[in-house]
Amino acid sequence: MTDSKQYRAALVVIGNEVLSGRTQDLNTSYIGKKLAARGIVLVEVRVVPDIEDKIVKAVNELRGENDYVFTTGGIGPTHDDITSASIAAAFGVSVKVNDEALAIMTDHYQGQALTPPQKKMAMIPDGASLITNPVSGAPGFVIENVYVMAGVPRIMQGMLESYLDTLESGAPVLSKTVRCNLRESIVAEKLGALQKQYADMDIGSYPFYEDGVFGTNLVLRGVDESQIDEAVGKLEEIIKTLI
Amino acid sequence: MTDSKQYRAALVVIGNEVLSGRTQDLNTSYIGKKLAARGIVLVEVRVVPDIEDKIVKAVNELRGENDYVFTTGGIGPTHDDITSASIAAAFGVSVKVNDEALAIMTDHYQGQALTPPQKKMAMIPDGASLITNPVSGAPGFVIENVYVMAGVPRIMQGMLESYLDTLESGAPVLSKTVRCNLRESIVAEKLGALQKQYADMDIGSYPFYEDGVFGTNLVLRGVDESQIDEAVGKLEEIIKTLI
Repeated sequence: MTDSKQYRAALVVIGNEVLSGRTQDLNTSYIGKKLAARGIVLVEVRVVPDIEDKIVKAVNELRGENDYVFTTGGIGPTHDDITSASIAAAFGVSVKVNDEALAIMTDHYQGQALTPPQKKMAMIPDGASLITNPVSGAPGFVIENVYVMAGVPRIMQGMLESYLDTLESGAPVLSKTVRCNLRESIVAEKLGALQKQYADMDIGSYPFYEDGVFGTNLVLRGVDESQIDEAVGKLEEIIKTLI
Repeated sequence: MTDSKQYRAALVVIGNEVLSGRTQDLNTSYIGKKLAARGIVLVEVRVVPDIEDKIVKAVNELRGENDYVFTTGGIGPTHDDITSASIAAAFGVSVKVNDEALAIMTDHYQGQALTPPQKKMAMIPDGASLITNPVSGAPGFVIENVYVMAGVPRIMQGMLESYLDTLESGAPVLSKTVRCNLRESIVAEKLGALQKQYADMDIGSYPFYEDGVFGTNLVLRGVDESQIDEAVGKLEEIIKTLI
């Protein structure tokens, strides 16, 4: 369903490995782009450690403020995978072996009896629905507006694809980039004036420094393509006068 | 100064471009690693948009709970660079042209009169001290326990290096990784038992899926190297029994 409302989402990245710098998070940018294309704006990300209180606090603060909350990480079989129990705690429900999840896991392991760690991956908060995992079997889940996914990018992406089309969404956010080899401070004044002219759009200025050269990417984002094109035209004229 | 206390830090990544997925944040992992090596544990990251209220809320919540808060992004010359004003608002102080910053900027631009956007980069909250920018002139700043840096990784890194050695810090967090081509669920039980044996350490299990093969990186983190080595030895024995 698409309407003119812009939907808001937050993401909770769960994992000590992202905070320690061991693992480079790649899920934020992937999810941010996929949501924007569906008119759902990612408005906040929190990276929290594998500590139940921290997960509960982040999820409970964000689920009240946003249409959707997505989480990544911590749904595996090991002792540091505490997301399912933490989400259950956030909602004040119990977590137990889910029959549907158990059937999926048993099927994935070709009918062998599941070991306790494998069975742990079938522990789902009461009242949640499952999210398909097309890569490695163990499902994610959704409870109210909170979508719980794996942290491994390939698995997270498969899960997201499985339900993305079912989310209520708004007008896609479109984006065009104008790159110039000018320092930000050179374009800043005229860019600020352009932003005032197009208050519906979000004009961002992102400096880069590559091979000893300072330059700026100017990014125009909005839902009205003809308006973006018009502003891009004006911006290109502005840049010509400054080079 | 090094003592046995573990220091806690949070990071606020400021920028619509990270939330939209346009820009891949690289600062979290860099900062996380640099801090861990100095016994400062990154315990939370928030990515917030270029909206003053959101920046103020994140900074004020996190600076009370942590020894240090670091921010990246939003200190440039354009209309969407609102970090200095937002940090000033968070501390309830005014923001104005800082003489020392102005001198640095004027020197950087070789004595030319600064344009208003260039001058904007010398606007610093009252009571803050400057952070050197060895790359592009415009300084960052520190106010109480909040360290405000640029978002461009190369510039952020230069700023961080300029003061990192001056931070009060604890025992460095050391980390060793054992990689195995076993699914997490195979090692989970014995790994959980090992974690219980070494409660001072943080044992993480990070599955990967590469070229159709499932495997797991087992990461042992702590401040006592001989203890880590001992646990690595035990873990290698465990893996031998499981392959």
